[in-house]
Amino acid sequence: MGTVRLLSDDALSPEAQAVFDDIRAVRGSDFVNDFWRALAHDPVTLKATWERIKVVMAPGALDPLVKEMIYVAVSTANGCSYCIHSHTAAAKAKGMTPEMHGELLAVIGMAMQTNGLVTALQVEVDEVFKA
Amino acid sequence: MGTVRLLSDDALSPEAQAVFDDIRAVRGSDFVNDFWRALAHDPVTLKATWERIKVVMAPGALDPLVKEMIYVAVSTANGCSYCIHSHTAAAKAKGMTPEMHGELLAVIGMAMQTNGLVTALQVEVDEVFKA
Amino acid sequence: MGTVRLLSDDALSPEAQAVFDDIRAVRGSDFVNDFWRALAHDPVTLKATWERIKVVMAPGALDPLVKEMIYVAVSTANGCSYCIHSHTAAAKAKGMTPEMHGELLAVIGMAMQTNGLVTALQVEVDEVFKA
Amino acid sequence: MGTVRLLSDDALSPEAQAVFDDIRAVRGSDFVNDFWRALAHDPVTLKATWERIKVVMAPGALDPLVKEMIYVAVSTANGCSYCIHSHTAAAKAKGMTPEMHGELLAVIGMAMQTNGLVTALQVEVDEVFKA
Amino acid sequence: MGTVRLLSDDALSPEAQAVFDDIRAVRGSDFVNDFWRALAHDPVTLKATWERIKVVMAPGALDPLVKEMIYVAVSTANGCSYCIHSHTAAAKAKGMTPEMHGELLAVIGMAMQTNGLVTALQVEVDEVFKA
Amino acid sequence: MGTVRLLSDDALSPEAQAVFDDIRAVRGSDFVNDFWRALAHDPVTLKATWERIKVVMAPGALDPLVKEMIYVAVSTANGCSYCIHSHTAAAKAKGMTPEMHGELLAVIGMAMQTNGLVTALQVEVDEVFKA
Repeated sequence: MGTVRLLSDDALSPEAQAVFDDIRAVRGSDFVNDFWRALAHDPVTLKATWERIKVVMAPGALDPLVKEMIYVAVSTANGCSYCIHSHTAAAKAKGMTPEMHGELLAVIGMAMQTNGLVTALQVEVDEVFKA
Repeated sequence: MGTVRLLSDDALSPEAQAVFDDIRAVRGSDFVNDFWRALAHDPVTLKATWERIKVVMAPGALDPLVKEMIYVAVSTANGCSYCIHSHTAAAKAKGMTPEMHGELLAVIGMAMQTNGLVTALQVEVDEVFKA
Repeated sequence: MGTVRLLSDDALSPEAQAVFDDIRAVRGSDFVNDFWRALAHDPVTLKATWERIKVVMAPGALDPLVKEMIYVAVSTANGCSYCIHSHTAAAKAKGMTPEMHGELLAVIGMAMQTNGLVTALQVEVDEVFKA
Repeated sequence: MGTVRLLSDDALSPEAQAVFDDIRAVRGSDFVNDFWRALAHDPVTLKATWERIKVVMAPGALDPLVKEMIYVAVSTANGCSYCIHSHTAAAKAKGMTPEMHGELLAVIGMAMQTNGLVTALQVEVDEVFKA
Repeated sequence: MGTVRLLSDDALSPEAQAVFDDIRAVRGSDFVNDFWRALAHDPVTLKATWERIKVVMAPGALDPLVKEMIYVAVSTANGCSYCIHSHTAAAKAKGMTPEMHGELLAVIGMAMQTNGLVTALQVEVDEVFKA
Repeated sequence: MGTVRLLSDDALSPEAQAVFDDIRAVRGSDFVNDFWRALAHDPVTLKATWERIKVVMAPGALDPLVKEMIYVAVSTANGCSYCIHSHTAAAKAKGMTPEMHGELLAVIGMAMQTNGLVTALQVEVDEVFKA
């Protein structure tokens, strides 16, 4: 599948090559996954996406593993197969145990369920919940 | 709005009353929010939902605040206004600081963005990400 | 709210007026709900939508009440507040009891939950399920 | 694909084995589909999901075939490929004819279309539709 | 995959055959893609869908290429893999350059991101934006 | 509603104030809509979002009006009320006529409908559509 071809390293523009160099340096690995190889047709969006994701997913008030699990949660609700796979793998690499994965799934399932119930019931927001 | 009326305490069936009693006991508060008052028309689903959410959101391999943030993430991707409000309030009550809220939002935004990009590109999952 | 103004009867084009006449005749009621008043700015889409919905929602291999419940289910998953309200009202008008409404909600919640679980798990479709 | 391995029968914990036994008994078939084999890593969620789905999908005010069609409708709006396949197969097994399937699809398509139109128009809910 | 079999030309009903004839005539090509072969089990929905899409996607106040890009945008947000592939191919056939494709993707990604941010923030619509 | 308070001009940090200054300069208007006032609690995300949206929505291979219509399409499929209102208003300000708006809506409705049909049918992507 794919709506564009994947670019191998020798097909990259210099701007895209610079982003790939940074991805490799930041991750400490030569492997660059196919999302970036598809996005590399547009070096401006490639660079903007990578520069922003690098900031957003870095350690901060939330730790990187929590961020990966939030990423999986959003990607699941949106049905993005690629994103679920890549960020579940990232979460495991950052220490997500099977128990944590199980609880992540249980919370996703619970949220989906009550999203459906409250939406079908069209309950108005309680005043006390408003900022 | 609402597709059913909200039930006040004196309109509850005994089965629904028992669930409300447990909600109040577990939360240590007399307040019962309107989701439960809408769901109370069906005591079986009310009880099943409450019993399960009590288990799922309890401390475990993930702490309750992380679970609330995952809940907000799913609810945002599903566009469930009520759920976003109630679980953001719950997350704040469990210690989510403005900095943590800001990072939660940033991760949600980032995930939504790359969900869109990778879906539009229809990139196949890299072999290395498969379990 | 609204991204267009609602058209009152005296602001309709002759083509839109003819559709409103048919809506009133088919439903046996003078009331025309606001969806049609918003859509009436574009008489071609108004007519196409009404003509098709009249066929699709008519009695057939499935009875009209079942069709309304399926409509509510889709609208809930898509988070369309207007559609949930209007088709829940239509389902009630066609005989949906509180018990049936409760079961509709329970199935929606269950489906949402397992949609989330199986999507997060990325389970491949069993061969036996393929047509 | 898959973010976890599928568990074969000899890899199940005793708690998961008990759930599989009940799935087989209730369905009157030795076949257990892969959703349950993926979920079996977390016996608590496995058991909770199975126990609830057994109640929700049983005959009640709505017949099981109607419930399966509602399940397909939600799963389609959420884009859950696995769920669409498995619940379409279940609906066929419970008597869904090609004519009923065709009407199910037509209602889903119609609902999706008007969900999009009314959402883009941002029509407010008519007072008469509120419970 | 598939929840119905695909119909080859010699398995079509006369009503479905007539629609296929028109698809071929309008497109000036003998190729009929598999969406129509799956939909052909229900000639009424097949005909209604084709007749409407022919009108909607024709040149008008918006040019056909713009319409194809809007189609890709909706299909991406809904995660419809088939639709993304077929309408991206149609857009390319109507003149979408790699630069235009890149900008389409960038706008989709931006919209997804701010959809997530504003939904998580639950910002009310400014008065000035209402029609 | 809202999960954070909206910040008035005198409550902005210097970093947020600088972004507001640029929004006003680029738009040639003193009005700053409430999305930015909610986002201003996190000046880093505020600035990153504004800087990127400024680039993405600028004239390029696609004209700004087309980009606004694509934005509306994505926001509709995601059910983001605020985004639909604000980007429909922006599209009108950039020249979207009622006829163009009508066609935008018709394409959105058509795409939603076939997204639902093809997803329920689970049609595999034709080889000819793959890049």
